[in-house]
Amino acid sequence: MVETIFDVVGIGNAIVDILAHVDDTFLIRQGLNKGTMTLIDSAAADRLYAAMPPAIERSGGSAANTLAGVASFGGRGAFIGRVKDDPFGRIFTHDMRAGGLTFDVPPAPRGASTARCLIAVTSDAQRTMGTHLGACVELGPEDVSEPLIASARVTYLEGYLWDPPRAKDAFRKAVRVAQGAKRSVALSLSDPFCVDRHRAEFKALVEQDVEILFANEAEIISLTETADFDSALQAIRGTVRLAALTRSEKGAIVLNDGEVHVIDAARVREVVDTTGAGDLFAAGFLFGHARGLAAAACGQLGALAAAEVIGHLGARPDVALSQLARQRGLLP
Amino acid sequence: MVETIFDVVGIGNAIVDILAHVDDTFLIRQGLNKGTMTLIDSAAADRLYAAMPPAIERSGGSAANTLAGVASFGGRGAFIGRVKDDPFGRIFTHDMRAGGLTFDVPPAPRGASTARCLIAVTSDAQRTMGTHLGACVELGPEDVSEPLIASARVTYLEGYLWDPPRAKDAFRKAVRVAQGAKRSVALSLSDPFCVDRHRAEFKALVEQDVEILFANEAEIISLTETADFDSALQAIRGTVRLAALTRSEKGAIVLNDGEVHVIDAARVREVVDTTGAGDLFAAGFLFGHARGLAAAACGQLGALAAAEVIGHLGARPDVALSQLARQRGLLP
Repeated sequence: MVETIFDVVGIGNAIVDILAHVDDTFLIRQGLNKGTMTLIDSAAADRLYAAMPPAIERSGGSAANTLAGVASFGGRGAFIGRVKDDPFGRIFTHDMRAGGLTFDVPPAPRGASTARCLIAVTSDAQRTMGTHLGACVELGPEDVSEPLIASARVTYLEGYLWDPPRAKDAFRKAVRVAQGAKRSVALSLSDPFCVDRHRAEFKALVEQDVEILFANEAEIISLTETADFDSALQAIRGTVRLAALTRSEKGAIVLNDGEVHVIDAARVREVVDTTGAGDLFAAGFLFGHARGLAAAACGQLGALAAAEVIGHLGARPDVALSQLARQRGLLP
Repeated sequence: MVETIFDVVGIGNAIVDILAHVDDTFLIRQGLNKGTMTLIDSAAADRLYAAMPPAIERSGGSAANTLAGVASFGGRGAFIGRVKDDPFGRIFTHDMRAGGLTFDVPPAPRGASTARCLIAVTSDAQRTMGTHLGACVELGPEDVSEPLIASARVTYLEGYLWDPPRAKDAFRKAVRVAQGAKRSVALSLSDPFCVDRHRAEFKALVEQDVEILFANEAEIISLTETADFDSALQAIRGTVRLAALTRSEKGAIVLNDGEVHVIDAARVREVVDTTGAGDLFAAGFLFGHARGLAAAACGQLGALAAAEVIGHLGARPDVALSQLARQRGLLP
């Protein structure tokens, strides 16, 4: 076996988020579907931004947020994704490396700008996203380093990778390399509409290649084409070795082979912005898993990280999750 | 008299902030003087950024923050400052206009990048800043619209304008136009080291031109070259019609001709980041002043706005200050 260097390597869209508080009428006026992610072109992104209130900018991207969380727990992580050599690309790169992550994919010298995700946060803390993929559409198998994948305990892939044209080839290459190196493959389903767009392929992946699956209620219902969460739970049992199904304030269900663990949501003083909740749940879970913790303990680390990130605007942790986990007695 | 269109017009450096939580050893390693603003060149800014932890980006600039606060109270405001036509310039421009402010100075098509301020926030919520002025150095009297100044009840100037080469000429032109139109001139002293750099000129301005002065303890002590706040208070009495001297958790002292008003600090759940506290105090005070409120009521609006902005990362309000003020019974 190749030497283990990383706990987790993630592949995903490299995105800078632009977040603003809005009221519900904003979503209606802009024709946005609350709680979901819509892909938009550059002109639509400019129009949406012009309509948005004053905002903040912060690095994002689903798998990238997860890796930032893994690093915040003290884990060793690497990220594969594509930015342009522009100010947003430099922000994204800085935030990954400054967090202690390896991020070596060279920025594109030309072409589309670094991806941005316009995030409208309503007073119920729900986030509604419009993503312009920009430089992400260049991601391909040539960006996936085989030694990197082989050296990581877990290779983590976001379902959103099915949207840009060649990223699914990068995704498939990573799966092949990870399996060849006897490493785990983890997948997040990302978004119910993303699942709708790619259901057949996601189902085949989950049945054949994925060892650890992350999904929220809407996503797992969409994948299994069932009417409710309980039916989805029954449908997914047995198809994947380990599944973490997140349920917002109801916590999460972790399926580990035959076992079912109910994980309570961690305490939050005030839920401000749910952006990144699922990504950070995956961070805690994967960090625990890579360090050999039992499934329920992995779920508790996930719940803790999710609770931290929904307490403020933006999808990256504001405090060191390692410290928070020690304070709560979840890590030694 | 020219028709009144604006409550406040502000002139200042147009800056995007890059904020990160650091520990005190970071300041020592980087040779930064805690609680102050240091001017740095582009290369030093790159080095400091590379050393900083993951960060968030948010529009800033002292007078610009104040104007954002005035707009958040429901005031009509305009801003004069210089950005480049680049991503940070577009962020700054968006945030001003989306907040309801008039900001019409055209962005520079070439030359230095839009200014950035690297802000290291320590666990005591103190902020320490390294500013690269970039495109701000181009600000000059040609950017000051005479009809704009003449149409605003108050012209507000930040002391930081003494740092770029030609901004003081813009400043002086604005003072002349405002006085000619029988409008009020307000000045913030900005930073104790900034006062050190320009003390003689600031003293002459305060004695001859300024009707409303904003300063914190360190700044007013530096201006008056006294040993403590009480001596500074005695030294400044009588030299300016209206002064708001902010004292962090001790609130503020408002001097109004002969009267002295003690303003309590407003309640804060948790002080996260003091960036913008003085700027937002000025916002509340100036909004109240422009709307004809008594000096003590102006001070209370200032304290409320300062308390909101220190409760989160970044120097712009996260919630509508008009609503907050109504909830607290400070506005009808």
